[in-house]
Amino acid sequence: MEKALEVKLQDGKKSEVLVANDIKDLSHHLSSYGGNVLWVFDRNSASLFTSLPDQNVVLEPGEIHKGWRSIEIILSAAVEYGLARDSIFIGFGGGVICDMTALASSLYMRGARLVLVPTTLLCMVDASVGGKTAIDFSNAKNLIGSFYPAEEVLICTDTLRTLPENEYRSGLGEVVKHAFLTKNDDLYKFMMDNHEKIMARDRATVSEMVKLSIAVKAEFIEKDPTEKKGIRSFLNLGHTFAHALESSGNFSSFSHGKAVAWGISRALELGVLMGVTEESYQKKCDELLRKYKFDIDYRIGRGDWISFYQALGKDKKKLSGEVKFVLMKGQGEPFLSPVDISLLKKVVITYYR
Amino acid sequence: MEKALEVKLQDGKKSEVLVANDIKDLSHHLSSYGGNVLWVFDRNSASLFTSLPDQNVVLEPGEIHKGWRSIEIILSAAVEYGLARDSIFIGFGGGVICDMTALASSLYMRGARLVLVPTTLLCMVDASVGGKTAIDFSNAKNLIGSFYPAEEVLICTDTLRTLPENEYRSGLGEVVKHAFLTKNDDLYKFMMDNHEKIMARDRATVSEMVKLSIAVKAEFIEKDPTEKKGIRSFLNLGHTFAHALESSGNFSSFSHGKAVAWGISRALELGVLMGVTEESYQKKCDELLRKYKFDIDYRIGRGDWISFYQALGKDKKKLSGEVKFVLMKGQGEPFLSPVDISLLKKVVITYYR
Repeated sequence: MEKALEVKLQDGKKSEVLVANDIKDLSHHLSSYGGNVLWVFDRNSASLFTSLPDQNVVLEPGEIHKGWRSIEIILSAAVEYGLARDSIFIGFGGGVICDMTALASSLYMRGARLVLVPTTLLCMVDASVGGKTAIDFSNAKNLIGSFYPAEEVLICTDTLRTLPENEYRSGLGEVVKHAFLTKNDDLYKFMMDNHEKIMARDRATVSEMVKLSIAVKAEFIEKDPTEKKGIRSFLNLGHTFAHALESSGNFSSFSHGKAVAWGISRALELGVLMGVTEESYQKKCDELLRKYKFDIDYRIGRGDWISFYQALGKDKKKLSGEVKFVLMKGQGEPFLSPVDISLLKKVVITYYR
Repeated sequence: MEKALEVKLQDGKKSEVLVANDIKDLSHHLSSYGGNVLWVFDRNSASLFTSLPDQNVVLEPGEIHKGWRSIEIILSAAVEYGLARDSIFIGFGGGVICDMTALASSLYMRGARLVLVPTTLLCMVDASVGGKTAIDFSNAKNLIGSFYPAEEVLICTDTLRTLPENEYRSGLGEVVKHAFLTKNDDLYKFMMDNHEKIMARDRATVSEMVKLSIAVKAEFIEKDPTEKKGIRSFLNLGHTFAHALESSGNFSSFSHGKAVAWGISRALELGVLMGVTEESYQKKCDELLRKYKFDIDYRIGRGDWISFYQALGKDKKKLSGEVKFVLMKGQGEPFLSPVDISLLKKVVITYYR
């Protein structure tokens, strides 16, 4: 395992991001943990093993299971196996598994130890780093949760080999977001220059891309670990649009990363209409989004506007009633702003095109 | 309202403890909160109001309701009233209400604002200060929770007037614990000297006792807010015994503070048998415990030993299998230690007397 990064978080905590050469390297590291351990999988991630380690829970996969019932299953297993406060919860899977294992671990005896092994690209570059834990509640995505960073995040791009194409591209949505959010042009260039290798999931190329991507996320998180200063919320670029799209479609019609890519494009277009975003920057971003074939030309139907608009109001980033959007001035220059509803409508509905 | 104390906690957070002269003073302060607020009561604490404030939840009282179902009720109300991340959850009641309101607040949008108004003596001197939140799980008390300090803890001893005698004396159990734990003899002397006024719930006397008691708790919490260093766990003096007694009796046969007082007396007796506790100190403590008529002569039946012993193993303070007890050398000198089972049996079972 190679130590790629150390992310400094609230209260003196930190997450180490370690990258494995291959599955064998990962297994070796995982088997080195002493003490009492609970493994949390879903059926998909469990299938990466020929025989599962002892003391495991295998949950049903999917966003629909991201609720308290699954947390109860994890916690009950922890009780059954006699886990103590210094025992380790290992979340092995995508974002749903990592978010839920982290929440369960944060609650068990008011905080047990936590290691995450993200097995989807989306989770590697997003959910596993930064300490956000969550379940869905009352039809709102990630409404309930805590801040509880994993002490180690273990990345092994071998686990991406069997990932469905659709999910791999979903992860790329968050990677392009990071490419747009940083002042540094490295990730943008890397993605423009290595399109073929990235799409072929070349091990070394993808590992490098993941490291560059996490490094951007870490920049924002370290400045504002618990999202109190408005800095961390810049990572929500595209997400207010994305969550509304996902909520109004019951979380399933668009994959998360694709919805985010769509949302970023909408935020940029909205910024241009509002006269706050540089047009050249919008074009530059759209170029990368199109290169990776994100459907930025999608618009919602007129009839879906009400449910889309209502879903915006449920967004948990809302503070005292006002929904603020992340907009961009130019490369690496995000800011928070309320928006004009008629302009907002213009960039999301077919009718206005 | 008089600012009595400021308790410094993890991550730069602090809790202010404010003491009200009377109910009117308290109401005035509470009505000053701007923004969106959710009040959480149980039927008992709600009965202190002739008409309840808007946006309230009234839960069923009692430890049996200290579970996820109640948290869901609170969170659903928060969603219904459109609370945002900067909205305030006000927990108004005893330990169960304060612990649960704090947990719900810590989870809502990964952390909303929190104010606690403890209405029992036990909650004033214990649960409301220090940031522990909890629900019971899988038959184990407070197994699930987080650390999430209230920004304000509002004490109004007028709310104690209608408290049943049994519950008032339960709170005194934690107060004597604080009197024994600190080097400073003020609280011990105050309790010896003011027995009558304290039992008559004289407003000024009780306010002073509560302030002295919270100050002791704050000493320990500030040194170790999230119980990582073993210092905060000294506040568990008597609690390993107490929790086992409560668990094996389904939480109901002994009130919490009485169980704690019993547990303290057992811990002191055990320490004397082990040769680590000064006998003169044990006598001094027992004198105060007897003055307040705590049943320190109670012993469990032989037939209850197995369930008592098993409940000890479920204690959440357990680290990697070994249960450590808080023992005392002398006044203000707690330490953690494993204990000999045969000596332990000797101090809790009738048979051995």
